Order: sequence, then C-alpha cells, then structure tokens
Amino acid sequence: MSDVAIIMGSDSDWPVMEEAAKALDSFGISYTADVVSAHRMPEEMVEFAKNAATKGYKVIIAGAGGAAHLPGMVASLTTLPVIGVPVSLKNLEGMDSLLSIVQMPAGIPVATVGIDNAKNAGILAARILGVSDSEISAKVALNLAEINKEAKAKGANLNARRNTKTGF
Amino acid sequence: MSDVAIIMGSDSDWPVMEEAAKALDSFGISYTADVVSAHRMPEEMVEFAKNAATKGYKVIIAGAGGAAHLPGMVASLTTLPVIGVPVSLKNLEGMDSLLSIVQMPAGIPVATVGIDNAKNAGILAARILGVSDSEISAKVALNLAEINKEAKAKGANLNARRNTKTGF
Amino acid sequence: MSDVAIIMGSDSDWPVMEEAAKALDSFGISYTADVVSAHRMPEEMVEFAKNAATKGYKVIIAGAGGAAHLPGMVASLTTLPVIGVPVSLKNLEGMDSLLSIVQMPAGIPVATVGIDNAKNAGILAARILGVSDSEISAKVALNLAEINKEAKAKGANLNARRNTKTGF
Amino acid sequence: MSDVAIIMGSDSDWPVMEEAAKALDSFGISYTADVVSAHRMPEEMVEFAKNAATKGYKVIIAGAGGAAHLPGMVASLTTLPVIGVPVSLKNLEGMDSLLSIVQMPAGIPVATVGIDNAKNAGILAARILGVSDSEISAKVALNLAEINKEAKAKGANLNARRNTKTGF
Amino acid sequence: MSDVAIIMGSDSDWPVMEEAAKALDSFGISYTADVVSAHRMPEEMVEFAKNAATKGYKVIIAGAGGAAHLPGMVASLTTLPVIGVPVSLKNLEGMDSLLSIVQMPAGIPVATVGIDNAKNAGILAARILGVSDSEISAKVALNLAEINKEAKAKGANLNARRNTKTGF
Amino acid sequence: MSDVAIIMGSDSDWPVMEEAAKALDSFGISYTADVVSAHRMPEEMVEFAKNAATKGYKVIIAGAGGAAHLPGMVASLTTLPVIGVPVSLKNLEGMDSLLSIVQMPAGIPVATVGIDNAKNAGILAARILGVSDSEISAKVALNLAEINKEAKAKGANLNARRNTKTGF
Amino acid sequence: MSDVAIIMGSDSDWPVMEEAAKALDSFGISYTADVVSAHRMPEEMVEFAKNAATKGYKVIIAGAGGAAHLPGMVASLTTLPVIGVPVSLKNLEGMDSLLSIVQMPAGIPVATVGIDNAKNAGILAARILGVSDSEISAKVALNLAEINKEAKAKGANLNARRNTKTGF
Amino acid sequence: MSDVAIIMGSDSDWPVMEEAAKALDSFGISYTADVVSAHRMPEEMVEFAKNAATKGYKVIIAGAGGAAHLPGMVASLTTLPVIGVPVSLKNLEGMDSLLSIVQMPAGIPVATVGIDNAKNAGILAARILGVSDSEISAKVALNLAEINKEAKAKGANLNARRNTKTGF
Repeated sequence: MSDVAIIMGSDSDWPVMEEAAKALDSFGISYTADVVSAHRMPEEMVEFAKNAATKGYKVIIAGAGGAAHLPGMVASLTTLPVIGVPVSLKNLEGMDSLLSIVQMPAGIPVATVGIDNAKNAGILAARILGVSDSEISAKVALNLAEINKEAKAKGANLNARRNTKTGF
Repeated sequence: MSDVAIIMGSDSDWPVMEEAAKALDSFGISYTADVVSAHRMPEEMVEFAKNAATKGYKVIIAGAGGAAHLPGMVASLTTLPVIGVPVSLKNLEGMDSLLSIVQMPAGIPVATVGIDNAKNAGILAARILGVSDSEISAKVALNLAEINKEAKAKGANLNARRNTKTGF
Repeated sequence: MSDVAIIMGSDSDWPVMEEAAKALDSFGISYTADVVSAHRMPEEMVEFAKNAATKGYKVIIAGAGGAAHLPGMVASLTTLPVIGVPVSLKNLEGMDSLLSIVQMPAGIPVATVGIDNAKNAGILAARILGVSDSEISAKVALNLAEINKEAKAKGANLNARRNTKTGF
Repeated sequence: MSDVAIIMGSDSDWPVMEEAAKALDSFGISYTADVVSAHRMPEEMVEFAKNAATKGYKVIIAGAGGAAHLPGMVASLTTLPVIGVPVSLKNLEGMDSLLSIVQMPAGIPVATVGIDNAKNAGILAARILGVSDSEISAKVALNLAEINKEAKAKGANLNARRNTKTGF
Repeated sequence: MSDVAIIMGSDSDWPVMEEAAKALDSFGISYTADVVSAHRMPEEMVEFAKNAATKGYKVIIAGAGGAAHLPGMVASLTTLPVIGVPVSLKNLEGMDSLLSIVQMPAGIPVATVGIDNAKNAGILAARILGVSDSEISAKVALNLAEINKEAKAKGANLNARRNTKTGF
Repeated sequence: MSDVAIIMGSDSDWPVMEEAAKALDSFGISYTADVVSAHRMPEEMVEFAKNAATKGYKVIIAGAGGAAHLPGMVASLTTLPVIGVPVSLKNLEGMDSLLSIVQMPAGIPVATVGIDNAKNAGILAARILGVSDSEISAKVALNLAEINKEAKAKGANLNARRNTKTGF
Repeated sequence: MSDVAIIMGSDSDWPVMEEAAKALDSFGISYTADVVSAHRMPEEMVEFAKNAATKGYKVIIAGAGGAAHLPGMVASLTTLPVIGVPVSLKNLEGMDSLLSIVQMPAGIPVATVGIDNAKNAGILAARILGVSDSEISAKVALNLAEINKEAKAKGANLNARRNTKTGF
Repeated sequence: MSDVAIIMGSDSDWPVMEEAAKALDSFGISYTADVVSAHRMPEEMVEFAKNAATKGYKVIIAGAGGAAHLPGMVASLTTLPVIGVPVSLKNLEGMDSLLSIVQMPAGIPVATVGIDNAKNAGILAARILGVSDSEISAKVALNLAEINKEAKAKGANLNARRNTKTGF
C-alpha cells in the first residue's frame, strides 16, 4: 500500500513525471506510478479515482498535456487532494495544459504546480502528508535547509568562477 | 427519441447554448437538452456518453467553460461525433475553454466551434446529419441561400442609411 | 469516387496531413488528397467547394496554417461538414492558424481539431460517416478499444521499466 | 466611379468602418461602401474582387472580425493593394481578427492596420493614392501638420487645466 | 488557534477571498483571516510565514494579484502546504497573477487554484486536512454529493423552463 | 527648472499620468508635464529629448499606449534615465503598450513599470533622485513606512468588519 | 534614384529583409537598402524619413524586431506609404514586433505584413506602385498566375508522390 | 565597496546576467555579483535588501525567471532603485518572468528591462548613476555615439556585401 499515486496519460510522460517520484523517494514516501488516461481509459480512470481513497492513497499526483482533463476528472471522483502537473507538448509551451488543469469550476479544486514541474508536485505531496506526519514535515524542513545551502554554494561558485570573492 | 443531445455543465450556460437549439429547430431536427456536468456529475456523464448511441442520438453538442472537460470526456466514451462549444467565463475571454476543448490527444477528436458560437454547433450537427439525409442537407443549402440574401440586404440597408445607392 | 476529400494549401503540409489519410485508411474509408489553396487557387477552390457534394464527397478535411482561410472559405461554399486542421508554422506555434479556423461567424461552422492533429481529423470524419454507416461506427468502436488496450499496455511497460509491478 | 472600395462583412461593422470613409472624405477621395462577406457572399466576393480593378477602383479597404478572411481572400483575386482592418468582436479583443488578416502566406500581402483603426486605413489609402497624385500627397502633408498642431494644443490645454504654463 | 490562515495583500481582496472563508465555514474548519502583504509588509510576512507552523496553522491560503509574490514567498519560509489564489486586477484578466503564482522554481511548490477561485482554495484546504481527519473527508464527500444533486436539479430546472421533460 | 519631465502622447493620458505627478508632489520633487507625441510631434520630440539634460531635467517619465514608441525614442536621444508607463487602450489591455516599451534593443534601456501604473513611475523617479539626494531617499523610506502602516491598518479593518480580532 | 527604400535596424535583419529585395527585383522595381535604426540612429532616421519623398522614393519598407519603432516613426515623418515588417527575435516569436508596428495611433498608419514576411512587403510595394503604373500591375497579375500554376503543380506532385492520380 | 549589486537566483543565470556586468565594466562602474534567491534564500534576501543602501550600493540589478519574485521583493525592502531583468526559462519565452517582475503594486516600483536583456540593465544603472555623476553620463553619451557609429558601419557593410554603394 502506497501513500501517493502518480498517474499520467502515457508512459511518454514519465521523463517529466519521474521527478515527482524522485522527490517522494527523497522524503521516504511510498508511491505507485501508472498510466491512467482520461481519454484512452475513461472507465478505468473512474474506477481508479473512486477507489483511490479506500485503497489507502492519501494524495494523487496527475500529469497531463494539451486538453489535460486527467487531474480535474480524478478530482471530481475522489475526496483526496489531487495535484496537477501541466505537461508541455509540441506546441503552445504548456499554456493549454496549464489552463485545462487550473481553471476548474468552483467545487472541484486541483492543486496545480508549474508547467513540467513534477518535482514540485512531489514536494507538495510531502507538505500535505507532513500536516499530520511530523517526520515528513521535518524532512521538508531539512530539504528547505539543503536548498538554502546549495543556493549559497552557487554564489560562492559564481564568484570563484569570476575570480572574485563573494560580495554580500 | 431525438437525433441530437445538447448537454452543458449548468443551466447558466443555457443563454449561450440555446442558440444551438434554435438552429436545430430551424432545420426541423429533434433534440434533447440537459445538464450533464463532467465535474459535478462524472458518473452520470459516463453513463450518458456510453448509452448515447444506443439511445438513438446521432450527434452530441457539448458546451463548457474554463477547464472545459465535458466535450472531450464524452468523446472518449462514445463513437458519435461530439461538437464542443467553448463558453467564455468571467476571465480569459474563453481562451481557456477553447484550448481545453480543441487540444485533444490523437485518437479522440472533438469538433470544436468558435467561442460562445453555439449556433454554429447546431448548424454543424445539421451538416453532419445531412451527409445521409438529403432533406436536411437541402435545408442547409436553403439556409446558406438565406444567409446570402440577408447579407446582400445589409449592403442595401447600409447604403440606404448613408443615402447612397449600392456601389458594387 | 471517394467519401472524403483531404485538401491543403501546399504539398509541404503533407507530412502533417498524411496522418488524416492514414486514419482513414485504417477505417477503410476512401479519400482523395490534393492541393487546394484558398489564396493561390481561389477560383479553383470555389469550384472544388461548390462541386464537392455533387462529386460524391461526404466530408471535407482542410488543413491550413497562418491566416488559414481554406477551411472556412470551403465551408461557405458547400453544405458538407468541413473539418479544419490548424497547421503550425515557424512562428506563433499554430495559434494564428487555430484562431483563423475556429472563430468563424455564426452561420458557417468549421469542425476544428487540435493544432497539427490531422489524425483526429481523419477519426472525426469516420465518426461523422459512422452516423449512417454502422460498419464504420463499429470500426470506430474497435479503434477506441485498441486505444484503450495500448494505453493499459503502456502502464505495464512503465512499471516493467521501473522494475515494479503495475499498481492500480 | 470611385477610387476606393470600402467593404465589410456586415452593416454592423459600419460604426467602425465609417472612420475610413470620413478620412477619405477629408482628403476629397471618392469611395463606395458596401457589404461584401467572404463567408456569406463568397461568390459575390470573388466577382467583386476580380472586377475591382477594371471597375476603376485603385485601393480596397476591407474590414472583418474573428476568422477574418475577407481582406486576404480579396487580395488573392486582385492586383490592387488591399488594406485590412481587424475589427474586434465580443471575445479576444481583436487578436483573432488581427492574426487572421496579417499572417498571410508569402505571395498575397494584406496591408494591415491596427485593431478597429479604420481611420488609419483611410489615411493609408490616401498615402497610396498620393504616390501618383501630388494633390492628395499635399493633403496628407497638411493633415500631418494639423495633427501636429492639435497635439501641441493639447499640451497647452493640459497645462491650462493644471494652472501651469507649458514647460518645454 | 485555527487550522487555516487566509492571507491577502489588501482588504480590497476580501470580496474574492471571502469565498475561501465560507467554504471553510461549511466544513467546520477554523481559520483566521488577515492582511499580509509581500510588498507592503515584507518583514511581517517573513515573521508570519516562519511562525505559521508553530502557531498551529496546518494550511495557508494566500491570495494575490498582478506580480503576485505572496503565495510563493510564504511557501519559501514554511513547510506547510500553501494554496495560491490568483486574483484578477484591472488589466490582463488574472493571467499575470496566475503565472506569478504557479510558475515557482523546483523546490518550492505553491498549490495554485483557478483565477479568482477562492472557493476552491477553501475546499482544497479541506481535502488536505481530510487526509488525516476522516470527519472532514466525510464532509468533503457530502459536499461532492450535494454538488451532484444540485447539478441534476439544474437539469430539471432547465427542462421545466423549456416546458419539456428531462431527456436523459 | 524642474527635476522630472512627465511627457505623454495626448492630454487624454493625463488621468493615468497624473498619478506620477501626485507621487512626485508627495516627495517634494519638481516636475513639468506636457504633451510630447512621438508620432504627432516627432521633431519636437527629438528636440525635447536632445535638450532635456541641458535644460536640467534629471529623469524623464514617458507614458504611451498601443504602438508606444515615445519612451524608447526619447531614451535613444538622451543620456537621462527614462521611465516608461504602458497605458492600456480599448483593446489588448495594455499588452501591446507593455511590449512596445519594454522590449528595447540592447543599448537603449527604458525603465518600464506596470501597465497604467504611473504612480510607480513617480516613486521610481524619487528612488533614482534619492541615489544622490539623501533627503529624497529619506522620504522614500518614510513612504515605505507609511505604506507598511496602512497595510497593517487594512488587516485591522478587515477583522473589524468581520467582527473578529486580528489573528496573526 | 530608386522607387523603394528598404530600411532595417541592423544588417543582421538582412536575411529576412532580403526577400523584399528579391520580390522587387522580380518586378523590375528599383530600390536601395540600408541600415536605418530608430534607436541607434534616431536623428539620421528623422533626416532619412523627412527627405525620402523629395529624394524620389515612392514607398518605404521598414523591418524591425522587438520594440519595433522604425516603421511607425518613419511614417510620422513622411507622407509616403510605409510598409512594416515585424521581425521575430529570440523570444516571443515576433508578437512584440507585430504589436509594436501595427497598433499605431489614429493618424499615422503603417501597412503591416506578416511576421518575417518581407517577401509580402516587396509584393505590396509592387501593388502600390501598380496603382499608377500598369506595367507593374501587369507583372503583379503575372505573378499571381505563376503562383497559381505552381500551387497546382504541387497538387500533381503530391499525388505523384503518393502514386495516385490527382483527384479533383 | 561597489556601486551596483548584481543579484540572481542561481549561478545558471550568469550567462544572461554577465552582460550587465560587462556593460558596467565598460562604464568603469564597480559592482558585486552574487546569488541571492528569493525562494531558496528568503531570509538572506531580506538581509541583503535591508542592508544594501547602508553597504554603499546605489543601484540593484536583479535577474530572475518564471515566478520571478526577486526584483520585487528586494524593491520592497530598500529605497534604492531596483532594475529587474526577466530571464526566459524553458517554457513561455520569458512572458511569465516579465509579468512577475513588471506588474508590481502601486508603491513598490521595479525598473523592468526587456526579456534576457541584462545589458540594458547595466546601461540603465549607468544612466541612473549618471544623474549625479557627470563622468558617467559623459560615458553614456560616448556609448550612444559609438552605438550610432557602429549602426552606420553596418549599413556600409550591408551595401558592400550586396556590391552596391550606400544609398541614403
């Protein structure tokens, strides 16, 4: 039994969605990943979404591109928080995906992250699980500290590269 | 039993979608109109779409706004041609609705008409039914002739208003 | 005599429009493909459109890019359903093509599919012909089933690749 | 016989297109105004465009909105310079009209002016006629001088309103 | 002590953000609402965000318009899930607000809902709290059932208004 | 002699540009306001820009809408910092104005502020003058403190209105 | 002495603008090409524009990208018709260039062609000169006939490639 | 002690931001460059911004991409003029970055330059410093003269390349 379900319309979305999986791995959060397509597997999608909570999932991460209906449709069939990842396709740079996911009608929210930003979907899932799991929220805090450390190191690198000492 | 099903996410869409009904009336095509919401009635939507062909519908007209999933979801659950009407909401002037409806993945087409242009959805349904019904295609031809006559009359009106005689 | 006419502004559109032809082939639907340019062959375009129905065509698929006038102009000269394929050019990622095709005035509809998505144009033609041809609609149903099977196989592939068993 | 033909898809475009007429009046240039719709009068449009030069027209001004095909189609059927006026409709603020008019394929140019800016279409026609008519080009020069004078007067007005003397 | 903090840049955002409060009220979730401006109160914003978790807040809802920095800045200073509401201003219909909120860098997610859709922010907070509070998730399920019932009633209303019986 | 020149294409821009004047007034900075149109007064514009520095101006604020050339043209003719205010017109909500002002070629910068945000142009001028005038920079600091105080008061108002005490 | 002046902001625009020159060559129209930058050579630009008519130029073609002020500024300083070519730069695909050129204020028109479509600028110049030069307008007619012949040949090629005979 | 602080969210922004440094070098203006991330180093960012003036900085140049909060947040914490450089990321071509930076609320201005145009940020800093430093403003004037000379040389090059003599 896993805490998070990562779903996507096709295995070709995996290179983008894998970053969500890696983020969850880094927090020690269990997850399952599978192809669930709103348009190619509509009835399986309904079944998945209706049963997700009883199967023990706590958060759903759904990635989709173009007329991206998967996150919103799943959100209409579950009480779990659904995180939507707009995946950019060949044209329009993900703007169609973003609007199709974020502009949900009042009543059925999708927690939308940035275009192609599946890593943030994984971290958002961790923050959500961290609301009731202090171990996870502690790991999120640690991650923020690491991010901070790395950012500072980049400043040092930049000035080393430029043969100057860090200025601020 | 009706030939066309007009569906929409809410009765508040009726002022826009009514134009599809009026167009069908003008061609003498039978239709049913009802609220079928992808997000508020997902399972009823699935049932509707799966049974639409066996209930005798030949064409489906679906209007939706914002993250407009209704036309595409219905198209994934039926073999009938589905006509999508992007309805403009308070923000973005229907661009979100248009992209959510037209940018379907390869395999599941939605025949998309212009933003808020439900009249064209009704006429497109008539053209589709006219493929195998010469009476309807004759009415479409008549309608084109009327449209032509009205357009010419507008030119006369314009020049009457300007106190000039029509120039061309 | 063919059921569908595939027209496009230039033979350079063929790599995109060929997908419509392939889709029609897969449904056993006859078609003719030719260059008919609204701007470079306006009078031939008028002749083509006016005679399309009497020549026996039942559906027209028209692809065009930029100021894409071909689908709309043809639709104004025939009673047949016209499917428009917005072809993306060097700039603007097909947004100009999409708006030029879909935003038709009330009275003259074009059934618009996604940018560069000629495959969906072919499938939409099949759905339209299937309204009065149960053999074709059966093939559309079969195609939906195949699409469904392939999508599920992708999920299995994904989990095989990840060395996990499918989760849902 | 008139020098300029002002055409538009409907008499409802007249409040916008009238500004072109007023501009031509101010230069003493003769014109005819009429409804010529690409989609509602396609064959009359072809006839108009093909005969425009032999009828004595020297410049064509065409206004259209949405999937605005009129200027481009006319340009494909005449050797005269065609000026396109994108008219804004209820949605999209004229962006669809602009792209449908300006993004013509190589070979068939439309001289596009700003959205709803029919006045500039009239002035552009005057500049074009002024190439070979020094009386008209002199009037264009006079108009530029008047525009300049009015602009300066506005600065004086502004400072009068603010109870300061003009600063520069 | 409240479970949810609703923050916004100005009290002029309250008419939009109030819908989040109403949604939380309907689920019996406690909340505090206050003005916290990223640009007008940057240091208070930092203090608020750093202390939010220890003060007992579990979810933060942040509304902002234009260069909408509040949700993202708060997210960078807390481990709590932050829900961002893009508020539309006079120009650009909320597109600037949406992009400023959703396009966060990898590492710092904001759970973005639709433009001006604060109601969905409230419901999303309920779904998040429902992950570990079965009473709340049961209320979310009830709410989905009510939404479903209302949608169906709208269909009946529509057909009553049209003097037809519901068709599907 | 004034420190700041506020210029605009027409006195109809004054309701927007007046906010720049008010901001400068609040800092006690002298300014002159006048109509200088790039397109209607091109040679006066060149004269103004070339002489602005020698006339004693230190900063130029230029507002313009549509194809907004004034700020960039002035910047190409002076060494002074030029602040551009994109003014929104009837269509496109200021997006044309913004891009026409901000997307200057490398070599000739315009300090662009938000659409219709002339107040920020006035404040930016104060910040620029404050670089070498500690009295002005002290007033900018005071203004930031007032902005901060007002924002906090809005929070109190909000909670008073809601009959709750401020939460954070 | 040349009939047409082709100007551009930098010699790096030549690969785009060269197509205008080639088109003029094909019509036997004389032209001069030079770098005239609105922002890098503002005073030379003013001189050029003011003297263009007296130097014998009849039409000006101006290409520019980004905050593209050259065509509009030149148009404000001459009575000649000015054709603007929006050149696409690294970002925004020419949308900034297009809006900066086409959205001119009432009074100063620029005849705008499609993004990067300098060939159409050359042909438009020919159409304008053809108003009073029947030899040129005859060449434009010939060119239209050639374009028509080539388009038809492409249809034959397409069907040869597909091993079918041309269908229409 | 340096006059200008160049800050950016990551050292990966350096290839873009380096152009600001080079421009400052060309004017002999001292600067420090460092990584200061709004989202990864929020508290260090606050410290940096609050102390920037007392550390002797006179102008801050801040580059950021996507939900680009750095320039605006820094501007809210200092009285110095802040120049914002929108950096384009993988999607949306910098439009998200531009809107996130330029659309600041009234009260807190950011002097925004073009997308990826850090060179102009450096030159704008020189113009600002030149307000009170005639040596720098003289160098800006020299730079404008050089830009002018180079632009003219490009015209000569163009005509040399085309084997014609410069025309104007």
